[in-house]
Amino acid sequence: MRILSNAGVTWRPCLPYRKSMTKSLIAGLLLATAAPVFAQASPAHIASLREAALKDDIAYEIVEGLTTEVGPRLAGTEAEARAREWAVRKLTAMGFANVRVETFDMPVWVRGEEKAWITAPFPQPLAVTALGNSGATPAEGIEAELIGFNSVDELAAAPDEAVRGKIVFIDHNMPRAQDGIGYGYFGRPRREGPTIASKKGAAAIVIRSIGTDHHRNPHTGVMTFADGAAPIPAGALSVPDAEQVQRILKRGKRVRLRLVLTPRNIGTRQSGNVIAEVPGRDRSAPPILVSGHLDSWDLGTGAIDDAAGVAIAATAAKRIMDAGQPLRTIRIVWFGAEEVGLFGGLDYRARHGKEPHYALVESDFGAGRVWRVDSRLGKEREAEAKALQQALAPLGIAPGALDKAEGSDISPLLADGLPGVSLAQDGTFYFDVHHTPDDTLDKVDPQDLRQNVAAWTTMLAVLSGGIEAEPKRLKRR
Amino acid sequence: MRILSNAGVTWRPCLPYRKSMTKSLIAGLLLATAAPVFAQASPAHIASLREAALKDDIAYEIVEGLTTEVGPRLAGTEAEARAREWAVRKLTAMGFANVRVETFDMPVWVRGEEKAWITAPFPQPLAVTALGNSGATPAEGIEAELIGFNSVDELAAAPDEAVRGKIVFIDHNMPRAQDGIGYGYFGRPRREGPTIASKKGAAAIVIRSIGTDHHRNPHTGVMTFADGAAPIPAGALSVPDAEQVQRILKRGKRVRLRLVLTPRNIGTRQSGNVIAEVPGRDRSAPPILVSGHLDSWDLGTGAIDDAAGVAIAATAAKRIMDAGQPLRTIRIVWFGAEEVGLFGGLDYRARHGKEPHYALVESDFGAGRVWRVDSRLGKEREAEAKALQQALAPLGIAPGALDKAEGSDISPLLADGLPGVSLAQDGTFYFDVHHTPDDTLDKVDPQDLRQNVAAWTTMLAVLSGGIEAEPKRLKRR
Repeated sequence: MRILSNAGVTWRPCLPYRKSMTKSLIAGLLLATAAPVFAQASPAHIASLREAALKDDIAYEIVEGLTTEVGPRLAGTEAEARAREWAVRKLTAMGFANVRVETFDMPVWVRGEEKAWITAPFPQPLAVTALGNSGATPAEGIEAELIGFNSVDELAAAPDEAVRGKIVFIDHNMPRAQDGIGYGYFGRPRREGPTIASKKGAAAIVIRSIGTDHHRNPHTGVMTFADGAAPIPAGALSVPDAEQVQRILKRGKRVRLRLVLTPRNIGTRQSGNVIAEVPGRDRSAPPILVSGHLDSWDLGTGAIDDAAGVAIAATAAKRIMDAGQPLRTIRIVWFGAEEVGLFGGLDYRARHGKEPHYALVESDFGAGRVWRVDSRLGKEREAEAKALQQALAPLGIAPGALDKAEGSDISPLLADGLPGVSLAQDGTFYFDVHHTPDDTLDKVDPQDLRQNVAAWTTMLAVLSGGIEAEPKRLKRR
Repeated sequence: MRILSNAGVTWRPCLPYRKSMTKSLIAGLLLATAAPVFAQASPAHIASLREAALKDDIAYEIVEGLTTEVGPRLAGTEAEARAREWAVRKLTAMGFANVRVETFDMPVWVRGEEKAWITAPFPQPLAVTALGNSGATPAEGIEAELIGFNSVDELAAAPDEAVRGKIVFIDHNMPRAQDGIGYGYFGRPRREGPTIASKKGAAAIVIRSIGTDHHRNPHTGVMTFADGAAPIPAGALSVPDAEQVQRILKRGKRVRLRLVLTPRNIGTRQSGNVIAEVPGRDRSAPPILVSGHLDSWDLGTGAIDDAAGVAIAATAAKRIMDAGQPLRTIRIVWFGAEEVGLFGGLDYRARHGKEPHYALVESDFGAGRVWRVDSRLGKEREAEAKALQQALAPLGIAPGALDKAEGSDISPLLADGLPGVSLAQDGTFYFDVHHTPDDTLDKVDPQDLRQNVAAWTTMLAVLSGGIEAEPKRLKRR
């Protein structure tokens, strides 16, 4: 039996798995009595897919494979190219159709040496890493007086002559939060600090890592010198080192820092988005885009950022594909070059931004359990959004906003007004590890990962337009 | 009132603080009815010292000061010399008598560059650190096939020709344990692995860090090439990296490792033990030795290993001193050069090993709460040992063995048969941080540290022979 596309018009159950459709049809009809209806898999079918996904091993295998067989994969480097080859092999082996790479060019910045020492009054080494797009010191480093600020605003308010020629240190008080709310406001030292310090004539800047842990692994992350500010060396100290610097500064003596940061811009290189599909029964229907990003920072193996995300998105699509053929095409996009400036997301938008999409979804906040679903599907699809909330509730996922969706690579398209869903992950521990050498496989809890797969599979089942009962061999179109 | 030395013969209470002695005298007499008696502070006085110590801030100030103002302090280096100067200033300022340094010479090994990469089949960097006394690679490193073993015994059983010219990797399964029991058996890859690998002709060895964490901070630690084995480069991979290597090895392809470790032996340098005293009323009575070690590994700032230990020992002594004058001298020893081979402990034994000591006590297992007391005071002092157990119980400290005492620097003297006490700390998380860059101030819980100070103060009050009621100005002798 084929279910035609009828988004938002009438509700029709797909033929349930194993053809025992009566019960779920009745349940579905009961559900549909009070609201505008839409096509989705039957509640029983959704429940069965959801429960089965809680035993998933596929996603962990993807995370394990990508982090082990490729490891770190900085955008635009040979390592990211190997990741794309790995991705094409993997997605093809999983049985997806239309596996392809859409390449694009981008400027590439690579890390060099990175060392720091307090030289006075209490000589000792500090753990530092360069922020993405940092300028470089000479190979032997620079040494200058260190001047400390508790916030970007404090730096901005300082007279230029107090800063000129010195190395700036900026602290912050980022809180641990389930929804990661601190990353925006307390991430300002990374995003804004280098430009302000440069414009005030600072020799360099080091910030307290934008992180919530207490390990000697500094957090890198991208920043851009804006408003014509000349690049200066810009690094992050680990949180324990930043606290050490504060303790030393509080002694009230002149503090001197020696800093070696020798990153380089190596010019234009190629990156790319890896795309695969579960072709829908209605090839004219807009696709559902599920995504994560394939690139990682170079310090860790990018397990939570974002091997987990690409694994969750692809595994959910595979579980739907293995259950039958959805009405709508599911398009998997493993974006390239997210970390260093959303190059993959912007390239996708440039190529496909004018095409309609049924929903955009991205997983890029680790591997913690999904605890809230937000969506922005439009007023006319409110019944669908509520059915989605209802279908996710058994996984311990609370209904969230109906006018909100987010995701890094999909943010340009969301800004254009395309519909989207966000399955918010628990980020309580995310910023302990984010952008550090500690982003490794052991940080992924297999059970939490399964819950993510179950949430995404459920979401796809709801948005699918109905899954055809008889799985059949998919052909590449 | 003066209390004469009468160890093990008759019990006499000291004059209680503020001279209200009746109540505690009675309590003391009740306590003393059934067992051989000995001199100690009265139970009420002990309780008052114990409770007051639970509000202590002195120990944390010492840990904060030493880790901030000196930082890492590798034995025999200029940094350890600065630590001794800091220690002399601090112990003098605290009011102790006879503050002095006993210097000794020792061979010094210093760290160089340390980097490692898997070069095939999945190129990626690994986090590595050199083990103490490691041999060196050339500056450009070495590259060889990696051969993996799950244990030292597996390596020992391998034919030499399977190992020759290769880089050996040894894994292990050290468990997390409150008493740190895993460090002995599962530390064998560090202690024994390099010698066995060298004798089999290996080009180098890397082990899984002897640690229980999952951070990219490898655990260093000393080892010695024994039985005439030639030094080879010997490093530790962080636990996540070791697990990554195991996953890569399990793929069954030939694995190649590039290793850069360039430590050097810089010859003979000076180290020293810093000693201070609370002179007892009876200068002929053997002293109670309380200790920790001043040196640290170079990677972290040595907060839990062992700024906490020196702080606990000295703070307990100060709290007794501030309460009055003990019968017995309390000798504080901040040992030098513990990490790299117990040079300080051995020097102390060479100088003082023939002198009687009333008890030897060392804190060198972090800053976790004390949960068990062991002692080895001798059969004739069983009543004192049991009084010690009883006085510590209110702190949540369980009575342990009466025939056991341990401590790193004091182990040579304990081996000679001198009496000792061990206040066993909770080491559940100790080997997460031990010998890594992560051994920093933030790992010390001030509340747990206070409980340690209370335990040590209690112990000293029991062993003191009684504390004279009227505190008076101590003079250097």
